[in-house]
Order: sequence, then C-alpha cells, then structure tokens
Amino acid sequence: MSDIDLVVHGAAELVVGPGEGVRDLELVEDGALAVENGRVAAVGPTDDVCREYPPERAGKTIDATGRTVLPGFVDPHTHALFAGDRSDEFVARIEGKTYTEIMEAGGGIPVTVEAVREASEDDLVDALCEQLDVMLAHGTTTAEVKSGYGLDTETELRMLAAIERADRRHPVDLVPTFMGAHAVPEDTDTDEYVDGVVEEQLPAVAEQGIAQFCDVFCEAGVFDVEQSRQGLEAGTEHGLAPKIHAEEFSRIGGAQLAADLGATSADHLLQATAEDGRALADAGVVPTLLPATAFALGEAYADPEPFLDAGAPLALGTDLNPSCFVHSMPFVVSLSCLRMGLRPETAIRGATHDAALALDPGDGTGPLADGAGTLAEGTAADLAVVDLPSHVHMAANAGTNRVDTVLADGDLVVADGEVLRGQWAGGVARDDAPVEISGGARERVRASRERVASVIDSDRAVYGINTGFGELVSERIPRDRLDQLQTNLVRSHASGAGAELDREVVRAMLLTRLQALSLGYSGVREVVVDHLATMLNQGVHPAVRSTGSLGASGDLAPLAHLALVLIGEGEAFVDGVDGRLAGDEALAEAGLKPLALAPKEGLALINGTQLTVGLAALAVVDAER
Amino acid sequence: MSDIDLVVHGAAELVVGPGEGVRDLELVEDGALAVENGRVAAVGPTDDVCREYPPERAGKTIDATGRTVLPGFVDPHTHALFAGDRSDEFVARIEGKTYTEIMEAGGGIPVTVEAVREASEDDLVDALCEQLDVMLAHGTTTAEVKSGYGLDTETELRMLAAIERADRRHPVDLVPTFMGAHAVPEDTDTDEYVDGVVEEQLPAVAEQGIAQFCDVFCEAGVFDVEQSRQGLEAGTEHGLAPKIHAEEFSRIGGAQLAADLGATSADHLLQATAEDGRALADAGVVPTLLPATAFALGEAYADPEPFLDAGAPLALGTDLNPSCFVHSMPFVVSLSCLRMGLRPETAIRGATHDAALALDPGDGTGPLADGAGTLAEGTAADLAVVDLPSHVHMAANAGTNRVDTVLADGDLVVADGEVLRGQWAGGVARDDAPVEISGGARERVRASRERVASVIDSDRAVYGINTGFGELVSERIPRDRLDQLQTNLVRSHASGAGAELDREVVRAMLLTRLQALSLGYSGVREVVVDHLATMLNQGVHPAVRSTGSLGASGDLAPLAHLALVLIGEGEAFVDGVDGRLAGDEALAEAGLKPLALAPKEGLALINGTQLTVGLAALAVVDAER
Repeated sequence: MSDIDLVVHGAAELVVGPGEGVRDLELVEDGALAVENGRVAAVGPTDDVCREYPPERAGKTIDATGRTVLPGFVDPHTHALFAGDRSDEFVARIEGKTYTEIMEAGGGIPVTVEAVREASEDDLVDALCEQLDVMLAHGTTTAEVKSGYGLDTETELRMLAAIERADRRHPVDLVPTFMGAHAVPEDTDTDEYVDGVVEEQLPAVAEQGIAQFCDVFCEAGVFDVEQSRQGLEAGTEHGLAPKIHAEEFSRIGGAQLAADLGATSADHLLQATAEDGRALADAGVVPTLLPATAFALGEAYADPEPFLDAGAPLALGTDLNPSCFVHSMPFVVSLSCLRMGLRPETAIRGATHDAALALDPGDGTGPLADGAGTLAEGTAADLAVVDLPSHVHMAANAGTNRVDTVLADGDLVVADGEVLRGQWAGGVARDDAPVEISGGARERVRASRERVASVIDSDRAVYGINTGFGELVSERIPRDRLDQLQTNLVRSHASGAGAELDREVVRAMLLTRLQALSLGYSGVREVVVDHLATMLNQGVHPAVRSTGSLGASGDLAPLAHLALVLIGEGEAFVDGVDGRLAGDEALAEAGLKPLALAPKEGLALINGTQLTVGLAALAVVDAER
Repeated sequence: MSDIDLVVHGAAELVVGPGEGVRDLELVEDGALAVENGRVAAVGPTDDVCREYPPERAGKTIDATGRTVLPGFVDPHTHALFAGDRSDEFVARIEGKTYTEIMEAGGGIPVTVEAVREASEDDLVDALCEQLDVMLAHGTTTAEVKSGYGLDTETELRMLAAIERADRRHPVDLVPTFMGAHAVPEDTDTDEYVDGVVEEQLPAVAEQGIAQFCDVFCEAGVFDVEQSRQGLEAGTEHGLAPKIHAEEFSRIGGAQLAADLGATSADHLLQATAEDGRALADAGVVPTLLPATAFALGEAYADPEPFLDAGAPLALGTDLNPSCFVHSMPFVVSLSCLRMGLRPETAIRGATHDAALALDPGDGTGPLADGAGTLAEGTAADLAVVDLPSHVHMAANAGTNRVDTVLADGDLVVADGEVLRGQWAGGVARDDAPVEISGGARERVRASRERVASVIDSDRAVYGINTGFGELVSERIPRDRLDQLQTNLVRSHASGAGAELDREVVRAMLLTRLQALSLGYSGVREVVVDHLATMLNQGVHPAVRSTGSLGASGDLAPLAHLALVLIGEGEAFVDGVDGRLAGDEALAEAGLKPLALAPKEGLALINGTQLTVGLAALAVVDAER
C-alpha cells in the first residue's frame, strides 16, 4: 500500500486505449487509476488499483461511480488561432450564398488573413487561449494548431510564436504546424507564392524551431499536387514532418502524394477512394476525418470504411476554424457515429489514441510518445471524467457537454464543468508553471499608467503620486522628487522581522501582486509587470520576513521586501544559485536591471495584502484538491 | 437611483423578445437588465439601466461585456422523464437496423415502459432531476415534460406526480403533459386502449390536477386521426389543453385535426404541407419543430417555411427522449439554422418566446403569462448569459456549450458553467423553496437504520445506542430503556441561553441537519427525515437560543432545542400563526405527530454542528452573490 497524489475510482467504464483491431477499444469496467507526479501510476479494476493505492491515503480522490473515464481527447487538426469575425458568413451561407459569392462580397479566408496580420502577438495568444478554454471544457487536453492565416513570413512566424506562448500559458498541450501554404494571397501567382513559402517562410520557421509539422492545402484551384509536393518536401528537409489537406472537395491525388511522402497524416479525404485508403494504410499515413466541417458546411460526409478496411487507424478532429465553430471532440464522436456510421468504440479510439498517432512525427517526440490518448502506467495523466455511464452513451448524447472533470498532467483543470483557473495559480507557485502577461492586461496597464501621467502633467494634488503618505498626506512633494519619494517609501517600509517565508509563499505573493497590477487600477508602467513576470519565470525569490508589518494598509512590510529586490536592493534567492544574493545580483541572474521607480509605483507595489492573499490562494488550491 | 438585487450590464447583445414579424427578434446592443425579487425591474441600454440602478448599489452584478444575454430557453417538447437504458439501440441503428428490427429484438419503447413501470416515484423524480441539471447547464429554465411511458393509470399518475415533485425540487420550471396515448401497450387493441385512456386514465389525472396539457401520437400504425380526436377532446373536457404529435413519419391529417380542435401546438410536422401550415396559422396553433430528432435518427428535416410564410410563430424543442439524447436548446438553434435554414434570430425566437407560446393554455396561466421567453419589465428573471458576442455566434457555435451563467427567477443557478446547488440551500433557508427527500437518500437512510437495528438485535455494546454518553460510556443501558435514553438526552441538552436565532438560521440548521442525516451515516428512521422535511416545507421553526452549548461535540444545545420540537416538546414558531406554540401544537399545525425517538435518534439529531454549518452555508451563499 502506497501514498499517491490522486486516485480515480469506481468508473462505470474506463477507456484504457486502442484494442487489437483498428476498430477496437480496450475498456475496464469498474475501473480505477492512480496518479503520481502527473503520470499514471496504475490503471485497472477498482479493486486492484485501490488495494495498491488506497483512496484514503491519496492526496485527492475522484469518485467516478456511474461515469466514464477516458484519456483526454486529442484534437489532431485545428485552425484554432485566428482573429476577426466572420459570423456574417454564417448567415450568408444559410441564405444560400456560395463560397465564391461570399468571397466576391468581401468575405472568406482573406478576412481572417487581414485580421491576423493586424493583430499583435499578444492579441493572438489571448485569442487562442480563449478557444483552448472551450476545448478544455469539452475534454481536449492535446491539440494541433496550424498557422496559415498570415501568408507572409512575419505573420506566419508571429502565429507560431503565439502558439508556442499559448502552449506555455494553457494546460492544453499544443502541437504547432506551419501551414504557409494554406491559401494563396490575393493578387499573387501560386508558383511564386510556393517559392516564397519554400525559400523564405520555411527557413525562417525552421530557424526558430517553432513548428513540428508542415501542412499544405492540396486542392483544385489552391495548391496542385506538384506544388504541394514542393512545399512538403521542403518542410521535410527543414525537419518538419508532412501533413496534408487532401481530397476534400475534389480528388486530385493528395492522398497518393501523402503515401509517396510517408506523411504523418492525410486529412479531410471526403472524395478519397478505396484505392487511396489502401495507399495510405500501406504507407503508414494516418487518415484524419473531420466530420464537423461537413456538418457546418452542409457537405456530404467522408466514408471511413475504405480506410478501416485497409487496416489504417482512423483519426478524428474538429477542424475548428472561423467557418467551423466546433470545439467539442465529444460532438465529433457523436457526428462520426450518427453521420459516418462509426461504432462508438472506433470513434472514441479515433478521438484519442489514433489522433495522437496523427500527431506523431515518428522521432520519439510528440504527444504519442508522452502517452497522450492512452491511460497506462507511465502515460501523462491527461484524462476526462464524463457524467455518462459508457462510451456508447457519450456517442449518443449529441451536442451537450457532459464532461465533468478534466486532469491535465495530473492537475485538476476542470471540475463540475468549470474551467479552474485557480489551480493554475497553484501551478505557478508550486510547480513553476510559467506566467505570461496577456494582451488585454498590457492594454489595461498602459491605460492606467496614462492616467497617472496626466495627473503629474496637470499638477493636481493626488494622494500617493505627489503627496506624502499617511499623516503626511497634506505635504505636497515637488515634481523633481516624485521618483525619490517612491524609492524612499519602499526602503522605509522594508522593516520586517521573523522567519523568512517559504519559496511557494513568496511565489504566491509575486503572482497575486502581478495579477492585481494587471487589472490596470494601479498606474504602474508595463516594465514593472514585466519584471515581476520575469522574476517568477526565472525563479528570483525575494527574501521576505513573515512578521513586523505596519498593519495599517495591508502587508506593507512583506511587500516592501519584495519591492526592494525590484529596485536592486534587499536580498533574494535565485533558483540554481546557492545561498542568497543581493537584489541587483539576483536580478542580473535573470537578465534584469534594477528598476528606477516612477511616481506611484512604490505605493502600487506595497499597498496590498498579497501575503494574506497568497496564503489564501494556496489554501484554496489545497481545499480544491 | 435605487438599490436593486442584481444588475447584468454591458451585454454585447441582449435579446429582449420577439420582433414584429414571426421571423424577427428584438435586440439591444450594449444592454443591461436589473432584477428585483426574482423579476426583471428594467431592461435596456446599459447607460439607461445603470443610471436608474447603479451597479455599485446592486446586491450582485454580472459584467456581460462581450457576451450575449437572452431569456432562459423554453423547451416545449420533451419526454425527459424515463427509466432504463436503451443505448444498445444507438449501436443497432448505426449498424443499420430498422426500428421494426430493433422492436423484434426486444428493444424500442416497450423497454422504457417496462423500466418506468418498475421504477418507484422517488426513482423517477431523481432521474428527471438528473436530466434537468443538464438542460439547466445548457440554459433551459422552462421545460415541458410528458408522461406516456406508463400506459396504465397507475404508472401515468406516478409519472405526473414525479414531474410535479421535480418541478418543486428543481429550478427548471416544468409544464406537465399527460400522454397516455403515446403508444399502444403490447397485446392491446388500440380502440380499447383509447377507451381506457379516455374513461380511466384521463379522469384520474384530471382529478389530481397534475397535468396542464394532453398529447397524442397521431401517426399511421399508432393512433389514427379519429382515435387522436377522441383522446384530445376528452382531454379538453377535463380541462387539459390539446397538443399533438402530427405528420412525423406520414401525413395522415394530424395538423388539420390540431387546427379543428384549436390545439395549443402541433409538433414534429416533418411531412406537413403548405396547406397544413395555413390551417395551423389560421387556427392559432403553434407549429413546433424538433430537429434533434431528425438529427439523431438520420431523417430528413422539417421545412419551416410553410409555417412562417403562413404567419405562424414557430416553436423549437429538443424532443429529449431515450432515443434522442439532446438536452441542449443552443444545439437545437444551431441545427435549425444549419439544417432547416432558419436565420439565427428566428431560431432564437423559436427557442424562447415562441416556445413559451407553444406552452400557453390561453387561460392566463403558464410560463408565457409569467413572462418566460421574454426579458421585459415584470417578467420572471429567467435568463442565460452566453460567452459569445451575438446570437449569430451562438447559432454558429454548434455542439459546444457556451452558456456561462443562468438565472432562474433571479437566483444564480449556473455560474462559470457549473450548476450551483449551494444556491438552492439559500433558497430553502430564505425563500422557502421546498425540499424533497430523494430516492437515493431514502435508500441510504433505510440501509443505515438496518445497521442500527442489527446492533440492537445482536446485543453488542455500541456507543450511543445501548451505552451511556460521554463519561458514562461504560454504563450499559438495558434494552427496554433505549428509547427513553434518547428522549432524556434531548431534554437534558436543551439548555440554551441568549437571543433566539433568526428564522433563516433555524431553517438553515434544519436543512443542513436534514442533509447530514440523508447521507445515511446516522442510523435514524425514515420518519425522522420526513418530519424534518415537513417542518421545513410547512414552516415549523423551533425556538433555538444562540448560546450556552456544551461545546464538546458540536452545537449540542441549539440542536437539542430543535430536536425537542420533533418530540412534541419545547417551543416553535409556525408560519401564519402569531406568537409561539408548544412543540406538539406546532407539529399539529403541519399535520405531524410528535416522534417517539428510537435508539440512537436523539444522538443523531443533536451530535452535529448545524448552527455553525447553517451560518456558514448562508455566508457562502452571500459570498457567491
């Protein structure tokens, strides 16, 4: 009997992974699973697992009685990163307009391309994270995301950089695909554009190492087979494994090309034949079907039988994009059964293990290598608990979200259907999950700083900016000494005593102060929040003493010790460095320079309750466990 | 400027209700809404509403920036109350089996009928509430529920009684429909069965007053037009307004019958013609389309145009039933747009106001009269906040749940996508929402009482059952004095002092003690939990003093004052009666007799912390507001 982080027990059905044939699934009835350090430690019948890992000795238990537990969904094909709004096209399509008519009326992909080109990287990260929240709430823990709305080097790189940052910020694991050959920019010759993709975009992407796959839209009127081959072969030369949009609206040979190139996957395949199915199966290419696209656009569905008959494992994905707003893999499973005739076990398999297979570059990296799509000893503890008694019920419950609980790498990220962001705070404080300043937060911070600047310019007396503090409120501080005032404030309040706070508590203080400043009510400069974020991400932890505060306006003394390091004074511990360093040395370890505080910033840094709030946040995280 | 319970503000779009034509919707951009006492106090542009009701003076605010606010969905056609499991038929249908083949293999409606006949009323209430939870999470606040899986008087009555009880227990408002003529029981002549429905089932239903509508499955091979007419006319005579399943698989004249009878709605209508549309429109019958059925069964969809062209408002519903597991009205909206060609505004209108119209018996009662489906001054504050910027985005986001927040009668019942049951505790303590003992709780209570009984029989010494208490633990109590022991325990601990607790605190104590006993760890008899539930529902509130407890094992003294009333002693206040009554008189007002406590029950009643827990529960409710 052993202690363990988490035990899920009593599941009416627990999906372990693929069964023998490409249509089969392996299930355990009355199943259980133990999690340790973010990985599955044991899986099997409840009696067996609970004998080895008794729930009463687990840090947390999830009673899955009457429910289905399965690997977190893997969504192997999305264009989830986009900007702009094309909802008007939804109405136009209902009114019977064709895509050509919509394009002629100024709609279609060019609208998204224009919006993405105008969006900042921060905006793109925020936009992607919003989509990922919805996907996570529906049980997806791994997703591929493609570039391809930039169609120029700069924007394609910005999209891929945003995907990389969203991957760090969000619990959904992302697989980045470069898809410069998604469409041909307006007024551009296709051959010339392909040359640009191959000679300019691809080398730039490869140099930054921010894509794992290369994808091409091989379709009549877009990129023909030769152009597609050119793009994918160049991708392979740069270390990007090939994927392909093949035989969607017309059968022009994309499937055969995928087989020739040994592509990782061939996607869409609405027009593919039995011959294509055999070619893909023989070449080990994973056919990837996207029934939500057919659903959203009112097309015929792909026929899965040629692929399964040929012995190919079949992956399923959402194809989430600006004209197919389907985030839900459970809905894709239902569609696959109801409209494509898949049996539920084949659909679940296609949405988990075989979808991971469609994201496997074959070099031992990637989600499949990490165990995505399977629950077995040693795999990542990515799983969903669904409030239905079997995978068949899941398939039958169409269009409703019955996902109750989601774990990502063993962390509880969805509970009772609610995406838990608090848990991520625990992740930052304890597990060193990285933080990022969102684009919205940057905007708020900038706007609030402008208000401080306008006060200074106006010469009005405003507390904390150009007055003394506390009882000295009626003292007016001359303009040329406003900066010094803030430095003095921090120094004078750094008078704590008692034991030094634990690392996780200091991190919780840094995080909650950063969060408060990011609301944009405090008037600090952007550089202040950036410094705090860097300190968290680089592991710079001020030495803060636990008692001795003034107690009048919150945790003044502990926060002053924290702020002291920001200005290069005081002391701090730095991850990977023995002993304590002086504040300026600690900052230097993180590549930061001491801040010269601007008006109001000292006050904004120390006038808060982040020791209390930080401790409370950790208590809430513990309570939720 | 006025204080107000709740303000929702900044909605990118706020759906007010129907527009001028039957296809139109009235919207407010940047909309807000104020709620007082469970009803809408004001609705309009944020600036206007917030000028009159400043958010900072509201008890709670919901910032709906970037989101859509709309009336809670009204689902006008469900068979949401069922038992048993027919998920195997889902697989059989995928394999291409026809309904006849499924019936011959022992499947189909008879499976549900058999399971419902075997289910207890408690089981049925629990089963319905589980479905209602899912519907509520997807934004439904009003739903029709049909009987029709009993097909005999006793079971039809039990179904309707369960619907009535679920309506009391659950925040979704229910409209009950009697549908004895849903199918013909096996080995029964149809004419004879219709006679039984008319002569036996209907009078029994009418006598109990537990149905508002009468519905018939008018279909080739089920009930023909004459049989349907007979059933519906008899319903009308008994005060049940007519509804009809018409022209679903074959056009046999159900729509015309609906027009002749002036039915409230005619439902399904897949085979209806333009002539039918005009007949329904002229007769004021609401055509009700159920696209999820076509989706689940792979049929062609109904054509909405004949009805709209004829000027009829069009209602949309889920038809949730054991072979159509669709709970989500947002998904029905998406299907209606994508597959039936409705514009989003027409679909939203059909899922809200016009659905309420399909549940309007025309006598000034029912959800429409209460304002369901519309947000205007004076309507019930039933609404959903959807995390999308417009109703068009809602229609385009298919198969995902984007409902963020739901209010039912002004109470927050879904927040961040999570169904909030805690809020219902506030409803019981403060707003006198009724309580019910679930079937599962009864089972647990009975099982736990059996364990106590077996201890008594075995003559083993077990603390609290046949021993003294506290320091007297080593005293063995003779079997014939075990009951007296419990009475003495309650009397001796009823020694509180200080101010009397507020009504809401006493109710919170009663509720939380009831909840604790219902877990089935305390060994009380079922009659004890029933008495506590009746006290709550009938407004019997023991006089409990706030201080003076022993403090050793929880809130012994306050709980003893509460228990004293259960045994007909002490004092209590009764709603509607002036002053205080003796315990036995208070019980008599609620139709209860004093309990003679059985072994362990006194201990089970007083050994808890329900004063503390009750206060904490109210604090949590306040915090969530």
